Amino acid sequence: MNTERPLILVVNDDGVRAPGIRTLIRLMKTIGDVIVVAPDSPHSGMSHAITLESPLYLERVFIDAGSQIEYACSGTPADCVKLAVNKLLSRKPDLCVSGINHGSNSSTNVLYSGTMAAAIEGAIKGIPSIGFSLLDHANEADFSQSEDFVTKIVTQVLENGLPKGVCLNVNIPKVLKEEIRGIKTCRQANGMWQEDIQERVSPLGGTYYWLYGAFVNYDKGDDTDIWALENNYISVVPVQFDLTAHTAIQQLKSWNNG
Amino acid sequence: MNTERPLILVVNDDGVRAPGIRTLIRLMKTIGDVIVVAPDSPHSGMSHAITLESPLYLERVFIDAGSQIEYACSGTPADCVKLAVNKLLSRKPDLCVSGINHGSNSSTNVLYSGTMAAAIEGAIKGIPSIGFSLLDHANEADFSQSEDFVTKIVTQVLENGLPKGVCLNVNIPKVLKEEIRGIKTCRQANGMWQEDIQERVSPLGGTYYWLYGAFVNYDKGDDTDIWALENNYISVVPVQFDLTAHTAIQQLKSWNNG
Repeated sequence: MNTERPLILVVNDDGVRAPGIRTLIRLMKTIGDVIVVAPDSPHSGMSHAITLESPLYLERVFIDAGSQIEYACSGTPADCVKLAVNKLLSRKPDLCVSGINHGSNSSTNVLYSGTMAAAIEGAIKGIPSIGFSLLDHANEADFSQSEDFVTKIVTQVLENGLPKGVCLNVNIPKVLKEEIRGIKTCRQANGMWQEDIQERVSPLGGTYYWLYGAFVNYDKGDDTDIWALENNYISVVPVQFDLTAHTAIQQLKSWNNG
Repeated sequence: MNTERPLILVVNDDGVRAPGIRTLIRLMKTIGDVIVVAPDSPHSGMSHAITLESPLYLERVFIDAGSQIEYACSGTPADCVKLAVNKLLSRKPDLCVSGINHGSNSSTNVLYSGTMAAAIEGAIKGIPSIGFSLLDHANEADFSQSEDFVTKIVTQVLENGLPKGVCLNVNIPKVLKEEIRGIKTCRQANGMWQEDIQERVSPLGGTYYWLYGAFVNYDKGDDTDIWALENNYISVVPVQFDLTAHTAIQQLKSWNNG
């Protein structure tokens, strides 16, 4: 590989053949040398799960023509990053990009997201990392409106780096390119899934349940990712893996005198 | 159920039959009315994964005598909380406790932890929630030294509540009860797994990999959970589900003028 070009690790959670990652790979090849390690099947909602009790398999795959090196992995998005960095690559990548996810990872969806877990895993390993998501679940989603913005954000991160312990959660509204009003840096909106569990009976008489529901945004702020997306901006939330609620420490210390 | 006693939801990630959750159930029965919804098999390292593409099953189980109502669930720890709150319970529980996990969830292990994901899911739903973990992976781990401390922390949370959007990550050192020096409120240490991926060949000739490694603490602070545990304190980290790196927002805004 040409060592003057950045080394870019591409991951996702929808699987190595999903249109979203194919778009991302194509864009990244214009910027750097690309290695892809992505799940061999869809892994939405896998969050930061890792595979501890089963062996992992890697298969070299050839999907689109080009210089990129691609592997399909039997594990989760976080597994993919661990295998890429610690087994496949001889040096730490200059960038880890994850996605483009088919579906939103705004607000608390970040917690359930395999796409964002891969970016967070990259950040833990000290790699500038970005997760991209389009607000369209469909397999045939149109990613074309996002291309210039993805390239712009990646270029900025490669030029400026990211603060220590921080990766980016980028969400793209499902609108035409000319309707996108720009990029907005935001905080994570305070929303949640209001579940409406569906109960059904199998042909043999067993009762089973589907997780189902509607996402509800309780956050009235105009500085949130949901606000930005509803107003046709691309949202960028800086995400950290230090989960400490630092503002709560003093209050809790008063319970235990220390 | 007696409505004057608190309603306590008990969850874990090691499975409903694990000694850690059996200890926690026994302790919680002295404090409130207990409902258990826990995975039917071990789900360590599942993080905040949720089951979107498969149906979920719930089975009423009777493991120990007593007034508690128990279900084994085919899904993840986060699934268990969603099913409990939105399907099984007629009112929101007063407390959600998860664990006692067999193994540490200190530092960045919180990100991979199914135990803590269940507590975080409880916090998202506005339930005061606590994850408990003992620094002993063994199935036959001895949880007796932690009992008084678990009861104390649960009682404090029931009396005082928790700040909005915050749950507790409690880790217990593997030492004798008389060696425990007390409870310390801490921040999450900045550590990570240094992977040492193991490559093996199957009997049929296929190459496979095991995730393996050592946890390395890069954090020299004496206000971290790892410091507390190494010094025989029980560590309590307040954990939030707002992942926004608020301190990074201004810097990123300067890139995009907004």
